[in-house]
Amino acid sequence: MSVETFSTASRVAGKGEGVTLEELQLAARNHGMPLEAMRYDVTPAGLHYVLVHYDIPAADAPNWQLELTGCVEQPLSIGLTELKAMNRQIVRVTLECAGNGRARQDPRPVSQPWLVEAVGTAEWTGVPLTVLLEHAGVRPDGVDVVFTGADHGFERGVEQDYQRGLSLTEAMEVGALVAWEMNGEPLPPQHGFPLRLVVPGWYGMASVKWLRSIEVIDHEFTGFQNAVAYRLRSSADDPGVPVTRIEPRALLIPPGHPDFMSRARILKTGAVVLRGRAWSGWAPVDLVEVSVDGGASWREAELDAEGNDLAWRGFSVEWDATPGEYELTARARDESGRVQPLQAAWNRGGFANNSAHRIPVVVID
Amino acid sequence: MSVETFSTASRVAGKGEGVTLEELQLAARNHGMPLEAMRYDVTPAGLHYVLVHYDIPAADAPNWQLELTGCVEQPLSIGLTELKAMNRQIVRVTLECAGNGRARQDPRPVSQPWLVEAVGTAEWTGVPLTVLLEHAGVRPDGVDVVFTGADHGFERGVEQDYQRGLSLTEAMEVGALVAWEMNGEPLPPQHGFPLRLVVPGWYGMASVKWLRSIEVIDHEFTGFQNAVAYRLRSSADDPGVPVTRIEPRALLIPPGHPDFMSRARILKTGAVVLRGRAWSGWAPVDLVEVSVDGGASWREAELDAEGNDLAWRGFSVEWDATPGEYELTARARDESGRVQPLQAAWNRGGFANNSAHRIPVVVID
Repeated sequence: MSVETFSTASRVAGKGEGVTLEELQLAARNHGMPLEAMRYDVTPAGLHYVLVHYDIPAADAPNWQLELTGCVEQPLSIGLTELKAMNRQIVRVTLECAGNGRARQDPRPVSQPWLVEAVGTAEWTGVPLTVLLEHAGVRPDGVDVVFTGADHGFERGVEQDYQRGLSLTEAMEVGALVAWEMNGEPLPPQHGFPLRLVVPGWYGMASVKWLRSIEVIDHEFTGFQNAVAYRLRSSADDPGVPVTRIEPRALLIPPGHPDFMSRARILKTGAVVLRGRAWSGWAPVDLVEVSVDGGASWREAELDAEGNDLAWRGFSVEWDATPGEYELTARARDESGRVQPLQAAWNRGGFANNSAHRIPVVVID
Repeated sequence: MSVETFSTASRVAGKGEGVTLEELQLAARNHGMPLEAMRYDVTPAGLHYVLVHYDIPAADAPNWQLELTGCVEQPLSIGLTELKAMNRQIVRVTLECAGNGRARQDPRPVSQPWLVEAVGTAEWTGVPLTVLLEHAGVRPDGVDVVFTGADHGFERGVEQDYQRGLSLTEAMEVGALVAWEMNGEPLPPQHGFPLRLVVPGWYGMASVKWLRSIEVIDHEFTGFQNAVAYRLRSSADDPGVPVTRIEPRALLIPPGHPDFMSRARILKTGAVVLRGRAWSGWAPVDLVEVSVDGGASWREAELDAEGNDLAWRGFSVEWDATPGEYELTARARDESGRVQPLQAAWNRGGFANNSAHRIPVVVID
């Protein structure tokens, strides 16, 4: 029987088609960050978003070897003990799933059905990728670097280990880390134990988990996850352009108290400080604006003191809440001039949909 | 404006109505356990299912006080330091959400849309509830014990702190723990930091998180979560009966490798050991049967050595997989004679739906 009977092509939901049980399976396995958890500068590991393409692999940590091969002078096979003995760095990074916002696209691409919560900020401990590449000695004919993880499965008919490529230039400049700790503890299983790549500023698909192999190749990598999956396309026929760096986004910590089902927020009349987080993978955030009337009018938020540009930045704005119904929203701008839109352009994969989120709020006496 | 405009009555989805974005919001916040994580006897904390009714509260741990009041000789106000100085126990418990299986009911009750993954097994450290009740001295007029947590919100028009009641008899006999650690670490925020109740054998709604107050009352507790929410009803008018102990369930660890989207499993021809976990809150599991043909024929699984009756029990069965398409399923029986059904009876709240799960498998050469 052909693989295509159980591993089908991608599709877009029909008009008015509700979320399917297939999509729900993915939502139940791969969770987002509850938005109130943005109160923590660093997201507790169990609350950081998770995206596992296939299954969390069982990992034999004592025997784990990272292979560094290809267009290098000195291929390496490094165990965890050796890696941990190298000069380590701890870097705070905000990661976001490329598919964040997908389920709010209309029509809805059928895949991992994120709303806005596929984000997290963690402190990763590891050795810079550049140190390993320099240790191996990259040859002049190197073009791309291919990172392969231990998770194995099928996707749209293609059997594969999860693999992603970065250009050699990007690999040397992006500040990537080969990491073994998250928030000071060994990586949890779902976050890549015992070893992963962390690529700051890029959507999370670049940060290959359960990292087994780094291979420098002499041509452009055309593996599935670069050539087929993570591309911005206007239609199925459009070859598209690669998904790369994280588009600017601001998220508000929902104020007041929630209704269990609707997640509408109920607030008492009075002064309230609205807080949130904003980030961009292209350049530091330099402006956040907040609206309480669904984007009809905006007020500038106060940005927290500058910190590390690789992690989100907090913002706050005071609101004198009087009785009524409101729709809170927020948008970010970065130093490159990119502005988060109220409504991002549609694309067939449902990627990079950084449309501003909207929070219904009722203010009562 | 009335609360009912933003906090509406419960409803059941229409025929063929897909999962709504509202339900998806809940799926993204409250996650299940990826089924491959059943390979771990004790579920890593970040993989254990989570159900937060309202929001994870911000907790001021140094000033946290547990109030024990009502029909007691000696009301208590105990801080964490004092609790942790008491004789502690560590108990391994399997918890399951009462709504597990809800989204597979047809028609589908609209609420937290679980499939089968709302389960986890953890080791909880704490002081037995009986020790605290005896310390306070329960008076003869005590009838129910009310547990109140710090999470606050609205549900079907009712503003509330999350509260659940147990009969005094049950509270003294069920082996409940007032716990401050999960798997040897302080409770994560989403699992009740800094203090929670753990009620072994009961669905998870009984295990009140962010525990602030224990009150012994002289009458039956009729708060929302006991009298309205967690009841097995055949219709909206049916007063129903309370949801209490966990119905028997067996889950298989999906074998082979998955397709990303469908979660169908692909296996190579040959001998494979199918493994899984089974549990019941009513009595120890004494039989698990596995089918590869969707329930047409069954083979008895081998149960792992008996351990602690409060936690799941592993099982395994050998399968000589030959090319073809299969549907794997498993069912558990407990010593009380309860048998997990292929299709559980429908109920309006979508509770206790322990219908056997089904895993589509393709075996290839």
